[in-house]
Amino acid sequence: MDYPLAIVGSGPAAHTAAIYAARANLKPVMFEGLMAGGVAPGGQLTTTTEIENFPGFPGGISGPQLMDQMREQSVSFGTEIFTETVTEVIQRDDHFVIKTDDRSVTAATVIISTGATAKRLGMPGETEFWQRGISACAVCDGALPIFRDQELVVIGGGDTAAEEALFLTKYASKVTLLVRRDEMRASKVMQDRVFNNKKIEVLWNTQAQQANGDEQQLRSLTIVTNGEEKTLACGGLFYAIGHKPNTDFLDGLVETDDKGYIITKPDSTATSVAGIFAAGDVQDAIFRQAVTSAGTGCMAALEAERFIESNAQLTHA
Amino acid sequence: MDYPLAIVGSGPAAHTAAIYAARANLKPVMFEGLMAGGVAPGGQLTTTTEIENFPGFPGGISGPQLMDQMREQSVSFGTEIFTETVTEVIQRDDHFVIKTDDRSVTAATVIISTGATAKRLGMPGETEFWQRGISACAVCDGALPIFRDQELVVIGGGDTAAEEALFLTKYASKVTLLVRRDEMRASKVMQDRVFNNKKIEVLWNTQAQQANGDEQQLRSLTIVTNGEEKTLACGGLFYAIGHKPNTDFLDGLVETDDKGYIITKPDSTATSVAGIFAAGDVQDAIFRQAVTSAGTGCMAALEAERFIESNAQLTHA
Repeated sequence: MDYPLAIVGSGPAAHTAAIYAARANLKPVMFEGLMAGGVAPGGQLTTTTEIENFPGFPGGISGPQLMDQMREQSVSFGTEIFTETVTEVIQRDDHFVIKTDDRSVTAATVIISTGATAKRLGMPGETEFWQRGISACAVCDGALPIFRDQELVVIGGGDTAAEEALFLTKYASKVTLLVRRDEMRASKVMQDRVFNNKKIEVLWNTQAQQANGDEQQLRSLTIVTNGEEKTLACGGLFYAIGHKPNTDFLDGLVETDDKGYIITKPDSTATSVAGIFAAGDVQDAIFRQAVTSAGTGCMAALEAERFIESNAQLTHA
Repeated sequence: MDYPLAIVGSGPAAHTAAIYAARANLKPVMFEGLMAGGVAPGGQLTTTTEIENFPGFPGGISGPQLMDQMREQSVSFGTEIFTETVTEVIQRDDHFVIKTDDRSVTAATVIISTGATAKRLGMPGETEFWQRGISACAVCDGALPIFRDQELVVIGGGDTAAEEALFLTKYASKVTLLVRRDEMRASKVMQDRVFNNKKIEVLWNTQAQQANGDEQQLRSLTIVTNGEEKTLACGGLFYAIGHKPNTDFLDGLVETDDKGYIITKPDSTATSVAGIFAAGDVQDAIFRQAVTSAGTGCMAALEAERFIESNAQLTHA
């Protein structure tokens, strides 16, 4: 066996698992991915600006900085990190094989903490103007100069959409929120805040059809409101239509729900496969916070350690 | 109603809950306690030295410093803090009454995060020599000058006892581990480390009977090994015999297990009483880490927020 523990992922769950596992002498290997799930090593936090709610940082800390510090901590205790994306995990008798394009290693236990990726609509023009006016994270990108004093659009009807619209009013001349139905899924409090903000207009029963622009950036959106097609001038478009957990590479190895989130045992990170544990957003569609992810990463490391110990006791018995 | 949310406690769970709740404009009030559960505001971490495994601090951080920073963060977002111990929580029709010796406030929701306190034996001499040679936390106090190059004793048979004995070998001339039974509950890995450490002697079937000393400090222990009474010279005694959750003040208001730990719904901080949530060690006898506590504190704040919103919607409907 090459390693007692392999960790797939690089966000707060993955690094907290690595810190705990490395300090327990589990000599973990981490596959942090190469733009896996569309984001850099460090996960979704690397696409955010200031984080105010991670406990212990009263002055706030930037997402990339926090992840750099967690990575440094993982490495300092002996975590071995490969900047490669895992393509396959195979279960053998008493261990697992973890494959990337460059190597194949064996491990007694695996922690899956590959997170979730923001969904896209897939409409014409989307790929062309991605990162040239279209983003999946207002909180990350909204403060960029290209969005200042522009008319911006947010698509979505949940709490995230409401949050992002409110956030963007700090920079935009106007924010239009496109809601597919005639009501929002967002909590009442968030809806009230949206409705009370004079910079935000809500367009109900509205869908985006196409992104239009020039060589520089996005300039307008073709939308359909109550069946009527219109053109909406806009300098920035932000998706807030949900997330997709990064579990395709597992190819059904562990049990997931109908959205692809890994199912874990209650108050545990244990999956349907003994020896595989899941931590962070890949198994959490509800809380999805850096600190909750970190908490489950710690749980996964402790549970993996106990799994290895109890197997060792069985083998020696 | 005085407050939407009252938080009882002051550790990582309490402050993470406060940070999230305050940022969501829930204007939380926190009762951090006045030596509640025998520890200072900040909880058990205030009795530790360096913390190496809280993610985000690659150089480590002292327990008191980490808790100071969390407290500063809670306050900066608008948490109101009373340094008073809650003596009673009463359920009224649609709210709760939280009482201390100095005041009584009402709140729509309550987060209980009062932690757990290390157990004591209650033997003769214990109170007399407490903090003059007897401690419940080797990791906190082991580095103190009075314990240097002394013969030290740890009582307990679990992972914590093993960890504390190993930790103390850094300072002690010898460490004796008193185990009540003829085997340890600790994991095999930890037992192996104990047995392989030449500075540690394990005395099986052994119980401490009395602490003896002079005006300055603890000097010896009266112990019984296999029914035979002996005197063991020792300059320091460390208890590692488990914890007691701080739930007595609730007087049965929420459902607890037979050890007094609050029972929460799976993957949630909801208790048996709607509107009361529990986070941190007071509801976790398994993981008991700062980062897992912080994670559940975040969950509790988000669940309290949703509870308040859904009640508001019902009221307005």
